[in-house]
Amino acid sequence: MVRLAVIGYGYWGPNVVRNFHAQPDCQIVAICDRDPGARARAETLYPGIPTRADADEVLTAADVDAVAIATPVSAHYGLARQALDHGKHVFVEKPFTATSAEAEDLIERAERGRRTIMVDHTYLFTGAVRKIKELVDGGTLGRLYYYDSTRVNLGLFQHDVNVIWDLAPHDFAIIDHVLGLEPEQVVATGQAHLNGHEDLAYITLYYPNGVIAHVNVNWLSPLKVRTTLLGGDRKMVVWNDLEPAEKLKVYDKGVEITSRQGIYDLLVSYRSGDMWAPRIEGGEALYQEARHFLDCVASGRRPISDGRAGWRIVRMLEAAQRSVEHRGAPVALGPGASPVGRHRGVRIIHSHGTVAATPAAL
Amino acid sequence: MVRLAVIGYGYWGPNVVRNFHAQPDCQIVAICDRDPGARARAETLYPGIPTRADADEVLTAADVDAVAIATPVSAHYGLARQALDHGKHVFVEKPFTATSAEAEDLIERAERGRRTIMVDHTYLFTGAVRKIKELVDGGTLGRLYYYDSTRVNLGLFQHDVNVIWDLAPHDFAIIDHVLGLEPEQVVATGQAHLNGHEDLAYITLYYPNGVIAHVNVNWLSPLKVRTTLLGGDRKMVVWNDLEPAEKLKVYDKGVEITSRQGIYDLLVSYRSGDMWAPRIEGGEALYQEARHFLDCVASGRRPISDGRAGWRIVRMLEAAQRSVEHRGAPVALGPGASPVGRHRGVRIIHSHGTVAATPAAL
Amino acid sequence: MVRLAVIGYGYWGPNVVRNFHAQPDCQIVAICDRDPGARARAETLYPGIPTRADADEVLTAADVDAVAIATPVSAHYGLARQALDHGKHVFVEKPFTATSAEAEDLIERAERGRRTIMVDHTYLFTGAVRKIKELVDGGTLGRLYYYDSTRVNLGLFQHDVNVIWDLAPHDFAIIDHVLGLEPEQVVATGQAHLNGHEDLAYITLYYPNGVIAHVNVNWLSPLKVRTTLLGGDRKMVVWNDLEPAEKLKVYDKGVEITSRQGIYDLLVSYRSGDMWAPRIEGGEALYQEARHFLDCVASGRRPISDGRAGWRIVRMLEAAQRSVEHRGAPVALGPGASPVGRHRGVRIIHSHGTVAATPAAL
Amino acid sequence: MVRLAVIGYGYWGPNVVRNFHAQPDCQIVAICDRDPGARARAETLYPGIPTRADADEVLTAADVDAVAIATPVSAHYGLARQALDHGKHVFVEKPFTATSAEAEDLIERAERGRRTIMVDHTYLFTGAVRKIKELVDGGTLGRLYYYDSTRVNLGLFQHDVNVIWDLAPHDFAIIDHVLGLEPEQVVATGQAHLNGHEDLAYITLYYPNGVIAHVNVNWLSPLKVRTTLLGGDRKMVVWNDLEPAEKLKVYDKGVEITSRQGIYDLLVSYRSGDMWAPRIEGGEALYQEARHFLDCVASGRRPISDGRAGWRIVRMLEAAQRSVEHRGAPVALGPGASPVGRHRGVRIIHSHGTVAATPAAL
Repeated sequence: MVRLAVIGYGYWGPNVVRNFHAQPDCQIVAICDRDPGARARAETLYPGIPTRADADEVLTAADVDAVAIATPVSAHYGLARQALDHGKHVFVEKPFTATSAEAEDLIERAERGRRTIMVDHTYLFTGAVRKIKELVDGGTLGRLYYYDSTRVNLGLFQHDVNVIWDLAPHDFAIIDHVLGLEPEQVVATGQAHLNGHEDLAYITLYYPNGVIAHVNVNWLSPLKVRTTLLGGDRKMVVWNDLEPAEKLKVYDKGVEITSRQGIYDLLVSYRSGDMWAPRIEGGEALYQEARHFLDCVASGRRPISDGRAGWRIVRMLEAAQRSVEHRGAPVALGPGASPVGRHRGVRIIHSHGTVAATPAAL
Repeated sequence: MVRLAVIGYGYWGPNVVRNFHAQPDCQIVAICDRDPGARARAETLYPGIPTRADADEVLTAADVDAVAIATPVSAHYGLARQALDHGKHVFVEKPFTATSAEAEDLIERAERGRRTIMVDHTYLFTGAVRKIKELVDGGTLGRLYYYDSTRVNLGLFQHDVNVIWDLAPHDFAIIDHVLGLEPEQVVATGQAHLNGHEDLAYITLYYPNGVIAHVNVNWLSPLKVRTTLLGGDRKMVVWNDLEPAEKLKVYDKGVEITSRQGIYDLLVSYRSGDMWAPRIEGGEALYQEARHFLDCVASGRRPISDGRAGWRIVRMLEAAQRSVEHRGAPVALGPGASPVGRHRGVRIIHSHGTVAATPAAL
Repeated sequence: MVRLAVIGYGYWGPNVVRNFHAQPDCQIVAICDRDPGARARAETLYPGIPTRADADEVLTAADVDAVAIATPVSAHYGLARQALDHGKHVFVEKPFTATSAEAEDLIERAERGRRTIMVDHTYLFTGAVRKIKELVDGGTLGRLYYYDSTRVNLGLFQHDVNVIWDLAPHDFAIIDHVLGLEPEQVVATGQAHLNGHEDLAYITLYYPNGVIAHVNVNWLSPLKVRTTLLGGDRKMVVWNDLEPAEKLKVYDKGVEITSRQGIYDLLVSYRSGDMWAPRIEGGEALYQEARHFLDCVASGRRPISDGRAGWRIVRMLEAAQRSVEHRGAPVALGPGASPVGRHRGVRIIHSHGTVAATPAAL
Repeated sequence: MVRLAVIGYGYWGPNVVRNFHAQPDCQIVAICDRDPGARARAETLYPGIPTRADADEVLTAADVDAVAIATPVSAHYGLARQALDHGKHVFVEKPFTATSAEAEDLIERAERGRRTIMVDHTYLFTGAVRKIKELVDGGTLGRLYYYDSTRVNLGLFQHDVNVIWDLAPHDFAIIDHVLGLEPEQVVATGQAHLNGHEDLAYITLYYPNGVIAHVNVNWLSPLKVRTTLLGGDRKMVVWNDLEPAEKLKVYDKGVEITSRQGIYDLLVSYRSGDMWAPRIEGGEALYQEARHFLDCVASGRRPISDGRAGWRIVRMLEAAQRSVEHRGAPVALGPGASPVGRHRGVRIIHSHGTVAATPAAL
């Protein structure tokens, strides 16, 4: 039985509480939130769970095994560090931390103390992403060309972060998980129309093997769109997460260029076969994810979305942030080895010649 | 009665012939194409119109008033120059020319000879774009935030151009027409997976007044998408050109940030009202466009999509091309005055300091 | 404060409990269900509410003001009668009763005892139906031509009723509410493929003023569809209840026949104007409905979906049932005055001549 | 080389001309239409084909091998009879004739004269219907439960026929072709709102083996819908003919009732597997159909949609017509043997007892 305290009962916290509450081997021992209204809502739904305004006590309490942190990102590092230093396992909302340096520090602390640290990259636990991972790993799509996601709606404006830090972590985590690669270079453009933070952004990620990823995030769209295209040389996938059924469609479509002798001899052939919508496993992703966290705590296994995955996503966010601040200047990322023991940020690509875009080695 | 010769009867030429053929005050006097198969198709449909393998004769013939050029872009300049030099009016496919220098030269020749030159930016003549222009000019959308277009499908691969030169001219011409502004800076990312030309690209255009435009073009998409979002501070538009009816939807939706005293006092209010799909005028756009060309030839009026519009779009394409070749390096465009008499290219943004993206003055 | 007991905690009961529980002036004093599993689920979610296997006690208890009955329809009459006879107000699931005779009896008892009886026709409390009612009553649609609903999915098979009694009450209640008329004649066709009860059916309702209604219900559809068309001579409505936004679309479309002199002089003109999707009020319909019940209990007002509405819907179901049993034989309904004091069933239309369909006066 | 005259150049005639014109072994020798405007349109597009106001001459001309009749249905019989009597093969628009007696007469004349008679049931030649036929015949769908079609739009009002005769022939022909069975009984309801002919109708067809078909046709719908569901016990199909791609979706979905011991032991299990959209062969259906007609003329083979198929569809239309005139009175059809030599109409089901719907033996 894991005794869990949940910190933060705002937008996402209630989902965290509900899904851990439903696990047979987890007991929620406290819900913390500064806002009395949030505490009152928790008390109505869970009369048996004590609430607190202050998290300090639960972070140090001996009868708390783990904490789930669902606060604004600026508070993640402080809370997680305190929890780890008091021997607690940590489940923390995305994005993991506000900086990659914070992420590195937490990873070190968790490794030193042999605690589980897991970042809530919920999408990795959806049936759709699990199926996409299976299609990519099993070679169904062939060599991957691109990942192209549109994630737009009339958004819940955040006080402290821009749309990149709010929405892009979903796609970054999915790409990171599905590709198993880190981007070489990030280009982000965008604009801040309303409150000084970017409310729309377009991010391109260049990967070493020629794969390109693009993420369109926008809080000012009249329409809600959650559509991702994945193109491979054998099959292509359209994932529409708003479809109640048939979220994934796998197209047996493609283009083949069979001759390259000269531009007038170029033979392009199009392949257009069946489309197939594989059955997707249902169930709430966050329930599966809470299950995975508890299993990892029990077994000592490393979670799928561990601190290092969290760190990689924060690095991508930092790179996108620097790029967007310079209106699309390309930003190179160094190799994605384990962060521990090295400080590895992202840097804007310097140019000393005529072409600005040659990525300097970092 | 305008006596028109059509040069090029491949993919688009048949549409040009059909729509000029249907005009009461136009006589098609010749159809030229090197390909005997193309000529045979023309002869079957139009037994009364002579065909020729070679365009030279019609470009110099005294009884030809105008030529419509529907060849690959690399041939536009040569054909158009010859036609203008022999006193013919010119209707030419998009993109206008392969370089902005070629465009400038044609504009000068047309002005000198007082000939009409018009670029086939067909979308400007659709009911949808005309309505969008009306909504923007009339203030219905309020201050414009963004234009975001997705134009993807399993594409007709071109021999000589990449996906940017093939598909982006549509959006560039629409943006140019609707905004009446030229971009300050272009950022384009993309990848060439199949034949050495980019087959997918993501282009951001920064405009002086804070408007941002984004164009997603892709020849490797399993799905055909032709969707454009326009966000303004009063209304927002979704234009789905694949919808048989209700192509345009105008949403009375928005976000207002009513207080900026401090990040915790930020009050965000969402407005969600009716949606409205204005009736769009039907009719084939190319028919309207052919009509406009003939009217301009008759009256001497300047066409909506004149040589300068063509030149502006080519400049945007050149900028996008340079940017994508350098994996997203921002490219600045100088001010968009009349090109005549000045050579004005686009240049990659140099950087001599730490941040690559400061656009150098050109 | 209304003290409410809820009987039945199967498929719909949990929604009833949740929405009455959320009202400030209602206290749920018992949840009754024979199934121990159902009771266990209730106890987990509402530790403070006592559960019972047997409803008898709450039906007679002095400290129960009202009961909500969410059992299979066969039990509605017995439970409601007992509740009314003990002075309780009654909220009962659709369909009201298994026969119109039962419905008449309950109405009489409620009137005699001055108790509120309300049938859970949830759709009447949705924003969509409220807007439709407003459009029809306000004359926006003009003279109504038809109501045509498709309500199909891979269905929750019911033990004791066919698809007509399961799904058609929704449409019958909406039509009854929107039109304020009773049908003259019912024609129902259908087939029982799986368990002896019709699993798909097509029902036509003829109304006195020329309006025709059609309801397509099907438990064997691979697709879930909830689409209703309403055609009027001024405007037409498409209601797609599965759309997350823009559930209602109002089309300014129509046909006008301007001359009838002769068949070759018939001038048909089509009108195709804007489409408009009015903002629909959100909020859970069942919450609004529970609110309405409690208000009616407090004020003595007659609910929108009172016993008589329930009786009218049951009559329509009986007529459809008789018709479908005779493979579409038309069934006439007598005038829809108050049922009280008269026994008024539905009768198959007799025919004594050559044409079977002349509805006999009832 | 078949020398073909086309009679009628109104709504559909131009398509007939275009598709026969494109066949290598067919020469169109005349286009007949009373309307000078129609003839002018034909002359513009086909300067080489003579036009005539009167069809008489071509019906008797020795150098005409076949006629295609694309006039209003009332003229079909007279024109086809004259053509057959002068030894010409006949291709005639749907519906075949205005009465089944006329159809029988034409079949007899064609058989006597050994001429090909083919009814233009275009849908049978679409890739979608051919694939559906393949799925049903190959057992993929299992035992068929139902065919349910919605074919509605803001309609082209016909002068001389109602919506049943205009739109239902499409579905009747498809059902006839796919099932290879004739209905036992027809029930049609509907209403005439505008010009005295039904402008909307709902038709149910009962088949001997428990299959039920339903066709919803409506000229007063604001939305164009062309959707057909086919349910079988192994798979289910959704055919959306308006989809540009993926017109057919095959769902591995179903319901199984595994126990019938008692109503409380009824075990319903739902199967929800993959969805699959088979590639559909493209190409214009009418081109394939014209091809088939010419092949049948050359070889003497019986066309898929021969006169008997045309007769069966007319019988179904007559039954639906009688039923709708009596507000849904069930109409029985006798067995569907060859019509030749027997006069076999449809009769309203008489009733001499209490229940009108028992189909009297005919």
